[in-house]
Amino acid sequence: MAIAHPTRLAPGPVDLRAVDTRTTPGFDGDKAAGQAALELLGRELTELQERLFAHGRVGGRQRLLLVLQGMDTSGKGGTVRKTVGLVDPQGVRTVSFRAPTAEERAHDFLWRVRRVLPPAGDLGVFDRSHYEDVLVARVRGLAGPAEIERRMEAINAFEAELVDDGVTIVKCLLHISPEEQLARLLARLDDPAKHWKFSPDDIDDRARWGEYRAAYEAALCRTNTDAAPWFLVPADRKWYRNLAVAQILLAALREMDLAWPPADFDVDAERARLLGTEPSA
Amino acid sequence: MAIAHPTRLAPGPVDLRAVDTRTTPGFDGDKAAGQAALELLGRELTELQERLFAHGRVGGRQRLLLVLQGMDTSGKGGTVRKTVGLVDPQGVRTVSFRAPTAEERAHDFLWRVRRVLPPAGDLGVFDRSHYEDVLVARVRGLAGPAEIERRMEAINAFEAELVDDGVTIVKCLLHISPEEQLARLLARLDDPAKHWKFSPDDIDDRARWGEYRAAYEAALCRTNTDAAPWFLVPADRKWYRNLAVAQILLAALREMDLAWPPADFDVDAERARLLGTEPSA
Repeated sequence: MAIAHPTRLAPGPVDLRAVDTRTTPGFDGDKAAGQAALELLGRELTELQERLFAHGRVGGRQRLLLVLQGMDTSGKGGTVRKTVGLVDPQGVRTVSFRAPTAEERAHDFLWRVRRVLPPAGDLGVFDRSHYEDVLVARVRGLAGPAEIERRMEAINAFEAELVDDGVTIVKCLLHISPEEQLARLLARLDDPAKHWKFSPDDIDDRARWGEYRAAYEAALCRTNTDAAPWFLVPADRKWYRNLAVAQILLAALREMDLAWPPADFDVDAERARLLGTEPSA
Repeated sequence: MAIAHPTRLAPGPVDLRAVDTRTTPGFDGDKAAGQAALELLGRELTELQERLFAHGRVGGRQRLLLVLQGMDTSGKGGTVRKTVGLVDPQGVRTVSFRAPTAEERAHDFLWRVRRVLPPAGDLGVFDRSHYEDVLVARVRGLAGPAEIERRMEAINAFEAELVDDGVTIVKCLLHISPEEQLARLLARLDDPAKHWKFSPDDIDDRARWGEYRAAYEAALCRTNTDAAPWFLVPADRKWYRNLAVAQILLAALREMDLAWPPADFDVDAERARLLGTEPSA
């Protein structure tokens, strides 16, 4: 089963309607094959993430930041559970961004983001992110065009700064169709175990689908930098979404080319000392 | 395969030497059976943790805090990977406590702990904890007996306060033998992929095994409260340790008796509104 490297979004204008959300680019198998491929990928993902974590423990600066964006029900939470859940939770820092608090609103929009960046060695996962401040802010008119443009520039500068500081940034738009969203919202309403995931606001946002699409297209075009590229993940098929994000993370980790950190002590000397040390009773 | 509820440490004086670290109390199967039992438990654990998370999202105050203590190589990290790793990382907050920084030392020893408590709905995991301040601090003479005693009292007051605020606290001592530790430290020295986990200090701590044991016995006896009980987990067998901690977490979650949060909206009305809403193009 061939698994192609998921390609980043091409630079330039973005037309989300031109992307089929049910396709599985780079993968020609079915759901069962996709789940098997994910499990297989999981092993390498786990080892490379542990190497990253190990480097963080011995003074390395590298970190990995996964930004997940997408409309309601696009599967941000499911991706965390199924893909991020493959690796050691010790080295994972998941942050869900909701509507900013009064304290957060009293600061620049990036203030709250800076406070929760992953430390060295960690995989940080943003379920929503600073992009909400150029998406929902635009659609709901919380900020005017000039302020949105200022924020776009600020985001590019911020992300470039992070990259210079050793952060690898991977941004994924989980792209679903309005039909798929309808099915998922109905499923949430039909299952009492999922009512807590539903908010009446979701329907209001759904009514503004085209406005969100336009806001996403503008943001993706403007912030799809070489330093911090966007990936467009067709997400109507959950198994493909999980596999694609795993592949993207794996490619980013492979790119870091991390060997196990060498010992900063004399291994033979420590072995001799260990064998010669009697634990007190 | 019967799985008994792991019993909390009996109140009163603690004699760690009387506990066989290779036993598997409450479980009469072998390694394969233990691993299968863990996988089975994982399903209920995952569902109950999601219920806790759901409650946190809709205003619930409950949280779960797992405190993992034990000598080097006792398997705190492995427990996070294998047991905590069963549930959704979205609702997990893992914190590793290392030697305090200069800023942390400028505050009371509980200051840094308060800053990283799990928020409502989360499972917080402490890999080492405030207990280091009455363990390593005692063994290395970083604090005198009066200060250690003050800290013990402060810990009990702190934990009682947390419990009153909706935190369920589960404290596990992962109990290994010095022989098992020797084997695990040698394995770390023999495998270049594990060198980063080894520190020459580990051998110094090992030499003081008896002093650590006495420090643990004193701390366990003093802080084994009804509000925040200790569990003693024989941990020479990794599979049993993983299963036992899963069982302890599961019992704590069952005790919370959480139903799915009821909808705070009219389900039928929202379904009708959803079906009547046309997404803009």
